[in-house]
Amino acid sequence: MLLVDIGNTNYHIYDNGKITHLKDIRAFGRKLYYISVNSKKEQKLVELNPKAVNLAGYVRFDTRYKGLGIDRIMACKTISDGVVVDAGSAITVDVMESSVHKGGVILPGVYAFKKAFGTISEVLNFNPSPLSPQLPDSTQEALNWGSIGAVVCVIEKVSQNKKVFFTGGDGKIFEEYFKNSEYIEDLVFRGMLKTIEEMEKK
Amino acid sequence: MLLVDIGNTNYHIYDNGKITHLKDIRAFGRKLYYISVNSKKEQKLVELNPKAVNLAGYVRFDTRYKGLGIDRIMACKTISDGVVVDAGSAITVDVMESSVHKGGVILPGVYAFKKAFGTISEVLNFNPSPLSPQLPDSTQEALNWGSIGAVVCVIEKVSQNKKVFFTGGDGKIFEEYFKNSEYIEDLVFRGMLKTIEEMEKK
Repeated sequence: MLLVDIGNTNYHIYDNGKITHLKDIRAFGRKLYYISVNSKKEQKLVELNPKAVNLAGYVRFDTRYKGLGIDRIMACKTISDGVVVDAGSAITVDVMESSVHKGGVILPGVYAFKKAFGTISEVLNFNPSPLSPQLPDSTQEALNWGSIGAVVCVIEKVSQNKKVFFTGGDGKIFEEYFKNSEYIEDLVFRGMLKTIEEMEKK
Repeated sequence: MLLVDIGNTNYHIYDNGKITHLKDIRAFGRKLYYISVNSKKEQKLVELNPKAVNLAGYVRFDTRYKGLGIDRIMACKTISDGVVVDAGSAITVDVMESSVHKGGVILPGVYAFKKAFGTISEVLNFNPSPLSPQLPDSTQEALNWGSIGAVVCVIEKVSQNKKVFFTGGDGKIFEEYFKNSEYIEDLVFRGMLKTIEEMEKK
């Protein structure tokens, strides 16, 4: 059995505990469950793997949020209490209380910030680095505070004293700023596995 | 006498208290002082107005920040104590204490956030609106919190209890979230006028 999380940029593949990231997809000839936030990439996966099962139709999840992305649902599904941060192309911050989703925030991802600064002016050339404790005294650090620092600021505001669970390619960049936190590489896949379990119990 | 603040996107013109914004520049045939953060736009202005005086060579300003933009220097120059926020293509947040610049932050501007979200996914279509008090329950509001809200969060963190002075095309969007604040349309030009005064006293 293979799990595929189709993101905005990559296919994330979970094969018996091992995670890989692919720009492009192929025929796997195996039982395959997937979720997707990118319809073009999804179409390609289904063409090559016609028996693939989209888990979006089977997941149960309690939220008042209209149109919550399936990747965010899966990332939150195994967390009963805490804040879930998925840092990829976009950075999502979602709050879970007693297994109920209370709402969430979407920020640009690290690369999106870098590109945004670059299109404003070629002078605003930014490479993420650890945040300085004192107010920035250089453009590099000013951009760092205005991107990495802005994301940290929003997570702090939303999380207050709750535990923060990080996942996604850039999750570790942010995890270090939070004492009560954990990085879980396969958080989305845990939600997918739980959904499959629930399907099979029916 | 005409003042011109050449930004990343527009020429901002100050003519005896009246401010206009031009995409393109022309020959004015008048005494003209300017500052610039955009060398291409500056070249065009100087070609058409060969006697234009760049105030960057004349300004005195106390800071430990290396390479502080001339527009930020001018916006801060007439503020002895407080936080200066210039919200244009980029959003700069600078701290002044006893007429000394203590450092600052650069965030993407509102339009840069909008573009950044749009390039991540066409689903992330964002139009700025007033921030909801409770945690977002829709993508529109989640993006609003992740852009307008992120900027407000950083300004709050940097400003603490200091007065915040807003300027720039989008300054009013952010000013409403701060009790101890003021919007000053001509803040950069006030700094330019003060610099000219200081030049003439010499």
